[in-house]
Amino acid sequence: MNDIHLEKKIYYHDTDAGGVVYYASYLKHLEEARTEYFRAIGIDIAGYAGQGIIFPVVHLEVDYKSPARYADTINIFTKVEKMGSCSIDILQEIKRGDAVLVKARTVWACVSAQMKPRRIPDDMRKTVEGEING
Amino acid sequence: MNDIHLEKKIYYHDTDAGGVVYYASYLKHLEEARTEYFRAIGIDIAGYAGQGIIFPVVHLEVDYKSPARYADTINIFTKVEKMGSCSIDILQEIKRGDAVLVKARTVWACVSAQMKPRRIPDDMRKTVEGEING
Amino acid sequence: MNDIHLEKKIYYHDTDAGGVVYYASYLKHLEEARTEYFRAIGIDIAGYAGQGIIFPVVHLEVDYKSPARYADTINIFTKVEKMGSCSIDILQEIKRGDAVLVKARTVWACVSAQMKPRRIPDDMRKTVEGEING
Amino acid sequence: MNDIHLEKKIYYHDTDAGGVVYYASYLKHLEEARTEYFRAIGIDIAGYAGQGIIFPVVHLEVDYKSPARYADTINIFTKVEKMGSCSIDILQEIKRGDAVLVKARTVWACVSAQMKPRRIPDDMRKTVEGEING
Repeated sequence: MNDIHLEKKIYYHDTDAGGVVYYASYLKHLEEARTEYFRAIGIDIAGYAGQGIIFPVVHLEVDYKSPARYADTINIFTKVEKMGSCSIDILQEIKRGDAVLVKARTVWACVSAQMKPRRIPDDMRKTVEGEING
Repeated sequence: MNDIHLEKKIYYHDTDAGGVVYYASYLKHLEEARTEYFRAIGIDIAGYAGQGIIFPVVHLEVDYKSPARYADTINIFTKVEKMGSCSIDILQEIKRGDAVLVKARTVWACVSAQMKPRRIPDDMRKTVEGEING
Repeated sequence: MNDIHLEKKIYYHDTDAGGVVYYASYLKHLEEARTEYFRAIGIDIAGYAGQGIIFPVVHLEVDYKSPARYADTINIFTKVEKMGSCSIDILQEIKRGDAVLVKARTVWACVSAQMKPRRIPDDMRKTVEGEING
Repeated sequence: MNDIHLEKKIYYHDTDAGGVVYYASYLKHLEEARTEYFRAIGIDIAGYAGQGIIFPVVHLEVDYKSPARYADTINIFTKVEKMGSCSIDILQEIKRGDAVLVKARTVWACVSAQMKPRRIPDDMRKTVEGEING
């Protein structure tokens, strides 16, 4: 995957009594990495939310390949796979060194404040297309 | 403490790699138990929020005496200790059988939607006074 | 889906600033419902963990169809879709009344304490087959 | 407070439907900041856990003065207030710019793997005393 990534450390709050990171905790790191990816390419998701343009997760697929543990440093890599008129498919990998621990595909819808589907804003579309094709 | 309590079970999401319940996870159970306590005495906190009367936690004290573990059943006991004009002090105990695991004191402020202090609504005040004195 | 379900209420800790349940919070309810489903059919997942037989989630697919909100009551329905020699596919639906809010497919591997794949224990296999075919 | 601090950003997973950071979520940031504070002064809490020397939180006091919100950047400042033979009192402040949002006092016990109180290891004691007096 590409070079835009977020480095995170694992703390107790991420883990469970199985001694590894809890399966839902990875989703918090994935959220953070998606936000930072879009910020890095110049898109402010929080700013769109302020305008009533919201990107809820409508579909999620996760492969848990190997667990992260307390005090691990992980890197979350993010890229856009494809973009429809009202949705964006995002691929992510969580790695510890070279080992891929988790692979995730997240689909965002683009909706209004009333949760109705709406077209992805043109400026955002242009920027994302540049990243997909670049 | 009194008889109004909430029974909960401990699942993996409550625990951490230390093998016990994570210190912040108890606060979720305490929130649930406070909500259910007020519902049980006839006060709908969510209803007040809909009217722009909000009860944020402004102070918290917790004694962690003994840990809860995966698959434990806990009971959370709640009572109001005292009530000021714009605040309520709530005492809670989390028990496993007869053992007290956690003691907590939570102070709620009563604020408007603009986060300004406001008097506790009269109907709520009357109900809570009945519980304190009854 | 079948009649074995877990009823839960939504509290503030489940929600996010978007005003709805956070996408990872549903996974905690799904964990609880899987645990209670297996308990209801006579399988004690915590007991197997004590014997070093662990069922980590290795794959997850979630469709988020409609959001749950603060103070909602939800029901989580769980059934086993299929069982391999070392894995179990579980289907779940989270409903509010008749409305399906979330659909999830979770795949558990069966592994040893050393995280090596191992056959699902025979007693568990027999019980689960009875549920799939019954 | 001193200069050792952890900078964090607020994401949706930190917040609740009240539009602000959930009261228990701050405790995760406080945990991270304590861990990084001790690392910064040369103490590896995870390393001690590996030797069966554990520092559970036994007491917690939190003043919530003003809420953090989605997309805020916060800084968590940490210092040791005092040290007993088997316990450490830690003071923390969460700030957004110059505004103090949260003040917290956390007491760690020092216990063995069997959860029995034990003296704080001498090397750790010496380092912490240097910080308190320095």
